[in-house]
Amino acid sequence: MPSWTQLVAEKQQRQLKSIPQDWLVSPPPDSTLDVTGFPETCGLLGAREIEITNTSMDILLEKLASGEWTSVDVTTAFYKRAIIAHQLVNCLTEIFVDRALARAAELDDYLKRTGKVVGPLHGLPISLKDQLCMKGLETTMGYVSWIGQYAEKNAVLVDILLECGAVPFVRTNIPQTLMWGETFNYIFGRTTNPHNRTLTPGGSSGGEGALIALKGSPLGVGSDIGGSIRGPSAFCGLYGLRPSYGRIPYCGAVNSLEGQDSILSVFGPMTNSIGGVKVFMKAVVNAKPWLKDPLAVRKKWDEDEYNLVDHGSGKSLCFGIMWDDGLVVPHPPIRRALEMTKAALEQAGHKVVDWKPIKHGLIGDVTRNIFNAGAAEDFMIVTSATGEPIISTMDLDSPDPIVPPIRPRSGGITAYQLWQVQKLRRDTRKEYLDHWEATASETGTGRPVDAIICPAAPYTAYPHGKGMYSTYTTVWNGLDYPAAIFPVTTVDPVLDAKGSPREFYDDVDKTIHEMYDPETFKNAPVCLQLVGRTLEEEAVIKMTEIVDEALAAAKPEPYPPLLQRLRAVLRL
Amino acid sequence: MPSWTQLVAEKQQRQLKSIPQDWLVSPPPDSTLDVTGFPETCGLLGAREIEITNTSMDILLEKLASGEWTSVDVTTAFYKRAIIAHQLVNCLTEIFVDRALARAAELDDYLKRTGKVVGPLHGLPISLKDQLCMKGLETTMGYVSWIGQYAEKNAVLVDILLECGAVPFVRTNIPQTLMWGETFNYIFGRTTNPHNRTLTPGGSSGGEGALIALKGSPLGVGSDIGGSIRGPSAFCGLYGLRPSYGRIPYCGAVNSLEGQDSILSVFGPMTNSIGGVKVFMKAVVNAKPWLKDPLAVRKKWDEDEYNLVDHGSGKSLCFGIMWDDGLVVPHPPIRRALEMTKAALEQAGHKVVDWKPIKHGLIGDVTRNIFNAGAAEDFMIVTSATGEPIISTMDLDSPDPIVPPIRPRSGGITAYQLWQVQKLRRDTRKEYLDHWEATASETGTGRPVDAIICPAAPYTAYPHGKGMYSTYTTVWNGLDYPAAIFPVTTVDPVLDAKGSPREFYDDVDKTIHEMYDPETFKNAPVCLQLVGRTLEEEAVIKMTEIVDEALAAAKPEPYPPLLQRLRAVLRL
Repeated sequence: MPSWTQLVAEKQQRQLKSIPQDWLVSPPPDSTLDVTGFPETCGLLGAREIEITNTSMDILLEKLASGEWTSVDVTTAFYKRAIIAHQLVNCLTEIFVDRALARAAELDDYLKRTGKVVGPLHGLPISLKDQLCMKGLETTMGYVSWIGQYAEKNAVLVDILLECGAVPFVRTNIPQTLMWGETFNYIFGRTTNPHNRTLTPGGSSGGEGALIALKGSPLGVGSDIGGSIRGPSAFCGLYGLRPSYGRIPYCGAVNSLEGQDSILSVFGPMTNSIGGVKVFMKAVVNAKPWLKDPLAVRKKWDEDEYNLVDHGSGKSLCFGIMWDDGLVVPHPPIRRALEMTKAALEQAGHKVVDWKPIKHGLIGDVTRNIFNAGAAEDFMIVTSATGEPIISTMDLDSPDPIVPPIRPRSGGITAYQLWQVQKLRRDTRKEYLDHWEATASETGTGRPVDAIICPAAPYTAYPHGKGMYSTYTTVWNGLDYPAAIFPVTTVDPVLDAKGSPREFYDDVDKTIHEMYDPETFKNAPVCLQLVGRTLEEEAVIKMTEIVDEALAAAKPEPYPPLLQRLRAVLRL
Repeated sequence: MPSWTQLVAEKQQRQLKSIPQDWLVSPPPDSTLDVTGFPETCGLLGAREIEITNTSMDILLEKLASGEWTSVDVTTAFYKRAIIAHQLVNCLTEIFVDRALARAAELDDYLKRTGKVVGPLHGLPISLKDQLCMKGLETTMGYVSWIGQYAEKNAVLVDILLECGAVPFVRTNIPQTLMWGETFNYIFGRTTNPHNRTLTPGGSSGGEGALIALKGSPLGVGSDIGGSIRGPSAFCGLYGLRPSYGRIPYCGAVNSLEGQDSILSVFGPMTNSIGGVKVFMKAVVNAKPWLKDPLAVRKKWDEDEYNLVDHGSGKSLCFGIMWDDGLVVPHPPIRRALEMTKAALEQAGHKVVDWKPIKHGLIGDVTRNIFNAGAAEDFMIVTSATGEPIISTMDLDSPDPIVPPIRPRSGGITAYQLWQVQKLRRDTRKEYLDHWEATASETGTGRPVDAIICPAAPYTAYPHGKGMYSTYTTVWNGLDYPAAIFPVTTVDPVLDAKGSPREFYDDVDKTIHEMYDPETFKNAPVCLQLVGRTLEEEAVIKMTEIVDEALAAAKPEPYPPLLQRLRAVLRL
C-alpha cells in the first residue's frame, strides 16, 4: 500500500489536471492581502462574464428561465471565476468542468425544446461542500484515508438540486474531521480569506465562504454542527442559514461522528443575498425531501410563517439584542455592528430590547461533551487506515499550541454517561424555551421577542490558527434554533479602535480582548446572526430580510466616506 | 430509612384511603374471566351514569359543551366506573376524586358564567399513564424508589390538556421500568385484562388499556417506545395511536432511559373510537406544544393532510397488507382479522396488495440494542436507592424463565459503539423508505402504498408472563412511523381453530405457534395496526376511519350470530 503522503501527491496531481490550462492566471504575491478585486482585473473574464458573476441570484434565475442567458454561459462564467478564486485562496476540492457544462447544455436544450424550466433553480451553478457525494466523483472530506472512494450515488440533496434544475459545478474545501472553525487538511491544504489572506475564512465550510466572497459561485451548500456555515459566512461577508435539524436532507452525504443522533449537523445555503437563501430553502423544502431522507422533517414550506403570521405580520417586531454572551465580550467592530443594527431597526419602526443570555457556557460545554463522547475513536479509526496524522492545530506558527476543547485527545464515555449529558441538554433546552417565552412581558407587543440578534463570534475573521471560542454559534446548535448570518459593515481602523482594558470574565475573554488590533483585522467583513425558534426557517428568513432592508435604508450609499464615518462616530 | 417493602405497604395504604368507601363493590370471584359486564350490573352506577359512560367521545363533548351534561356529572360517572374497574382488574395508581371534581365544578361554573367552553376538551375526564406528573401528586412510575416524590409542576401535556378544558382524573398502572409488554410492579401489583382476566392487558400502558376497555375512562394517554400504547390497545380492543417523535409533548413527564435521544418514547391517545383519537390529536397539536416543549415539532394540525391530499383525496386507496413479518407467523384470529379487513376494503372500492417486510428482524434488534446500551445501569441506579429488586419476569409460574431480550442483565456499551448501532439504524431507515417509495410501481394508483395494515403482535392478549415477541410494534418505533390500532373482531374458538403444524421460521415462531389454543385465548379482542409515514398523523387517522367504516359496512350488525359465523367461515 502506498504511503499516505504518496496518496496525497497523486490526488493533488489529479486535481491539478482537472483545471483547464487556459484558466490559469498569475495570482498576485502573498503580500497582497485583499484579493477580492483580482478576478475582474486579471483578464481571464470577459465583460459579460463579469456581468453574469456580479448578478444577484434572483436576476440570474430570471435570465436563465427566460433563456436570455444560457446555463452554459452562466456556468462557464462562474467556473472561470471559481478557478481564479481557487488560485487566490485555495478553496476547491473536486473540479469537473466537462461534466458541469454537459449538464448545463442539457438544461439549455430542455428549455429550448419545451419552453419550460426543469425546476426553480433552472440552470444555476451551485457549489457544494466536500461532503455532498456525486456519483462517480471522489469524496475525501479532507481525509487521506478516503482518497480513491468514488461515490456510487448522489447524496439526496444533490438529487434534489438536480431535480430543481441546478448545475452542481465544484466541491469546496474543509478541515480534516470537519470539527474545526478553520479550513485545512493534508490533501488540499489551507483556504484563506479573500478580504485579507492572512485571515481565515472560517470553517468547516471555509472553501464555500472564500469562493462565494470572490463571486466564484452564486450559491453554495455548507453544513453546520457548531457554526460551520455561520462562521465562514460571517468571516467572508455573506448571507448564510443554519436551518433546524432535518429541514434540509442530509442522507447520503459523508460526515464525521456518524451515528451521533443528538446534535445533528445540517446543510444550509451560503450566498450573496438573503433572497438567495430563500430561493434555496423554498426549492429544497418544496421538493419533499422526506420522501428521500427518513430524517427530513415532513413540513412544507409555509408561506404563512414566511409572512410572519406568528409575529404580528412583521409590522412592529421586537428584537432582542445580545451584546455579549456573558462569557466573552466581542471585539469593537462587532459591537459597532450591533449598534448600527439596533439604530437601523428602531429607525424602521421596530423595537429592540436587550437579550439576557442564560447558561450559554453550559450549553456550549454540553454540546462539545456530546461530540467528544466518541469523537477520538471516530477520528482514530478513519485516519488509521492510512496512518495520516490527526491534525491537532490550525496554527501556522506553533506545532503544538493549546488544543481547542472541541478536539479530543483521549477516549470517550459510555452510552449511559452520554445519556446523562443528553438529559442535561434536554433540560437546558426547556429552560431556554421558557426564558424566551417569558420575554412576552417586556416587549410591549404581546408576543415574546420575535428574534435574537447577536454576534456570530467574538471576532471577525482572525489570523490562521488563532480561534478559540465557538460558543456564539454552537449554543444555537445545542438548542436547535435556526440562525441566519447577514453582513453589516467591515472592520475600520478609525471607527474600531482597540478598546481599553476592562474587567474580564476570565482568561479566554482576556486573551480574545488582547488579540484585537485594528490593523491585523483590517478589511474583514462584520456580520451578525439572527436567531429564531426551532423549525421556524421561513420566519427567520423574512426577519433577516427586514433587518437587511433596515440596514440598507439607514446607510444611504451616496454619502461620501468621510461624512459616513462621522455619522457613525457621532451615532447619527 | 424504611425498607422497600415498608414503603410499599405505606403507599398501598395511601392508595386504599384515596378510594371513597361507598364506591367499594363486591367483585366477582377470580374464576369469572370476562368482567366487562360487571360495571353495569354491580349496582353502583345509576342509569344516567351508565348512559354517560357508554356515550362516544364526540357526543360526550357536545353534551358537555352545550351544558346538557355537567362536567361534575360526567366526571363522577366515569370516576365511579373507574373505581369499579380498579376493583376488577387493578388498573389505577393515583386516585384523587376531590381534586378532579373541584376542577370539573370550575369548568361547569365557567361555562355557566361565560357561555363559552374553555377549550376543545371542555369538561372531559381524561386518564393518564403514571408518568404524567401533576403538581402535588406522587409519580412513582412503579418504582418503589420514587415513592414520596411529589411533583412540583405539571408535565407539559397535562398543562395543555388543562388549557383544552380536560379533567385529568386518575393515573394508571405500568410495569416497573416501563420496558415490558405487560403491567406489573411491586407497588401496585398486576393489571389484568377485563375480557379475560387470565390474560394480560399488555403494557406498558396496561392500566389505561384495562380501564378504557371497562369504560372507566373515555380517553387515556399512554406512551409508546416499543409498542406500549399499541399492545394494550390491541389486547384490550381499543383504538390507539402511536404518533411520530415529538408530535405530542413529552417534556416534564418521568420516564426510564432518560437522555436516550435516538428512539424516543411518545405519548398518544387510547380510546373507544377513532373519532376520539382525532379529537385528542387535533386539540393537543393546535395548542402549539412547541411553545412549551423544546422537542415538540413545530407542525400545525394539517387539515389538507387529514383530507388525504397526498393520497388522492382518499377516493381509491391502496393498502399493503403484511400477513406476517417473515419472522413469526401470527395466530389464527389475527390472520382472520387481516382477511376480514382485506375483504372489507376491497368491498369499499380500495385496493389491497401484499406488503413485503424487509429487515424487520434487524430493525427490532437495532432498536433493542439502543435501549440496552445503557438500560442496565439506568435501572440499577434508580432501584438501588431502596434496594427494590429489578423485576426479571412477568411470569406467574416461573421465578426465573427465559428473560426477554429487552431486559438487559448486564452492562452497556460505549458512546462510540452506540453511534455505530445508531448509524446502522439510520441506514436501515433509508432502505425502508426507498422500499416503500418503490411500491409506486405495483399499486396502480400512481402513488406508493398509502398505508400498511399489519398485526400488532403475533397473538391477541396472552396469559400473563408468556409474551416473547414485540417486533410487530417495535419495528415502527425504530422507523418512527405513526401507527394506529383498530379493533376488528374477537377470538372465536369455532372460527379460529388451532392451525396445523407447518414449517417454522425458527424456535420463537414454533413456540408462539404452539402457545395458541382457542380456549385459552377465548374472548380476547382482535385488533390490527395501520401504519403511515413519519409525521403523517392526520393521514393515519383518516385512513383508520376509512378502514373502520369499511369494516362496519362489511359486518352489518343485525345478522344472527350463527349466520354471521357461517358467512365468515365461507368468507362471504
